[in-house]
Amino acid sequence: MIGVFDSGLGGLTVVKELLQVLPGYRIIYFGDTARTPYGTKSPQTVTRYALEDTRFLIEQGARIIVVACHTVSSTAMEVLRKTFPEVPFFEVVTPSMKKALSLTKNKKIGLIGTRTTVESGIYQRLFQEADPEVKLYANPSPLLVPLIEEGWLKKPETRRIVKKYLIPLKMRGIDTLILGCTHYPLIKKVIQEKAGKRIKLVDPSEEVARSVKELLESSPELKQGLEPNGEPEVYVSDITPNFEKVATMFLGRRLKLKKVDLEKTHCKQYE
Amino acid sequence: MIGVFDSGLGGLTVVKELLQVLPGYRIIYFGDTARTPYGTKSPQTVTRYALEDTRFLIEQGARIIVVACHTVSSTAMEVLRKTFPEVPFFEVVTPSMKKALSLTKNKKIGLIGTRTTVESGIYQRLFQEADPEVKLYANPSPLLVPLIEEGWLKKPETRRIVKKYLIPLKMRGIDTLILGCTHYPLIKKVIQEKAGKRIKLVDPSEEVARSVKELLESSPELKQGLEPNGEPEVYVSDITPNFEKVATMFLGRRLKLKKVDLEKTHCKQYE
Repeated sequence: MIGVFDSGLGGLTVVKELLQVLPGYRIIYFGDTARTPYGTKSPQTVTRYALEDTRFLIEQGARIIVVACHTVSSTAMEVLRKTFPEVPFFEVVTPSMKKALSLTKNKKIGLIGTRTTVESGIYQRLFQEADPEVKLYANPSPLLVPLIEEGWLKKPETRRIVKKYLIPLKMRGIDTLILGCTHYPLIKKVIQEKAGKRIKLVDPSEEVARSVKELLESSPELKQGLEPNGEPEVYVSDITPNFEKVATMFLGRRLKLKKVDLEKTHCKQYE
Repeated sequence: MIGVFDSGLGGLTVVKELLQVLPGYRIIYFGDTARTPYGTKSPQTVTRYALEDTRFLIEQGARIIVVACHTVSSTAMEVLRKTFPEVPFFEVVTPSMKKALSLTKNKKIGLIGTRTTVESGIYQRLFQEADPEVKLYANPSPLLVPLIEEGWLKKPETRRIVKKYLIPLKMRGIDTLILGCTHYPLIKKVIQEKAGKRIKLVDPSEEVARSVKELLESSPELKQGLEPNGEPEVYVSDITPNFEKVATMFLGRRLKLKKVDLEKTHCKQYE
């Protein structure tokens, strides 16, 4: 089973991509809707939540973990990999960085994301290691998540705010822009319009789904262990009518959410 | 000690008012910044969090609890009062309703707030009981909290979104508007400007502070037990540099945040 988690429902954009490139694989998703969003919270708190999310998915039978959350990918991977050394982890930052490197011509790359993702400095470090000539320009864009979750995907207010966030990046002459949050693919068209045709967008959902497919193809054992099954199972820590609407919007089709009380489940770790 | 809690830091607007009308009283505040916001979450989850927040404040010595959070005031008061029958509780909904009743001339009252507050229907019920002739028009305004927490208090985008949320209420001819969220007093001027001079605003922070003062003045015993002390103690479940900035903005002066792990503290309740 492939386990995918995110702070909320944005990671369903990754599930959507996985279903496309790996049709029929059994996928279990956890969205921490009772504590969403992560992007405004501290790395310590985000790491604690990520450990609980991962433990839940492994307990449900996940053998591969896809961290769909950019904030977790930016801050908690080292702790996750140390805590669960037997589990292959995928995250959204590295494949996005690689894709951006392959696309850029002038080596000026832009990044939009939550405050915690941008401030983590992870992209800066990765680019520095991969190609010290790359210049990364990042702008935290914290209002995009609430705008998207409201379903204001094409509203003039959303367009204005996207434009505002992109101005400082465009002024630096970037030719590639990383959408550093799983929510952003939903407003990809607006972002492309405001960025202009010359700037190429990197969608982390597509990139991480491709990496998972590559691993499965190169390791028949792992592939064998995964049972094909039609529908993804989607667990959340809180359900509201609005969450159900948002989930349908992200996945592109209707689905049934199942609720689980993660804090209760994991209280034993504090004992 | 007077205990005040909120989903995040917005409730510091209530602390600010309390410090003005009851100078020198010892105040302890808890902001659940690790799980903020509450306004998008379900009544069940909000109630669970509210119980944990209250228990923490009582354990620290609070003898009166002020629920500064509109979402909690709208959904969890019955459970809170049943669980802690010995504690006087104050909430922000009832005093705001009374104030609105005293201000309105045409009995058309508007309400803006989070989705959970508006959908709880609490204001509708209270007005129905107090004066069945009152017509309440409510519009969920979920983007205002993130805009305010970004510090976009006077930005054109904020003005546009405020205007958009108020249009359907103005079309109904309201003469009074309840600011149904502790964050909103920070953009009171913008709201007043977009509402127009004829609409009177009700600020719940002011109203709840007045109620607390009235109780203390009418019950000398309770008053005697409360020890005067200069600075409020402010606890949060998560700290980031941005939370510290926002806290200062809400309280109107600098303060030191102390972190407490509420989930750990309260795990015993699940045993």
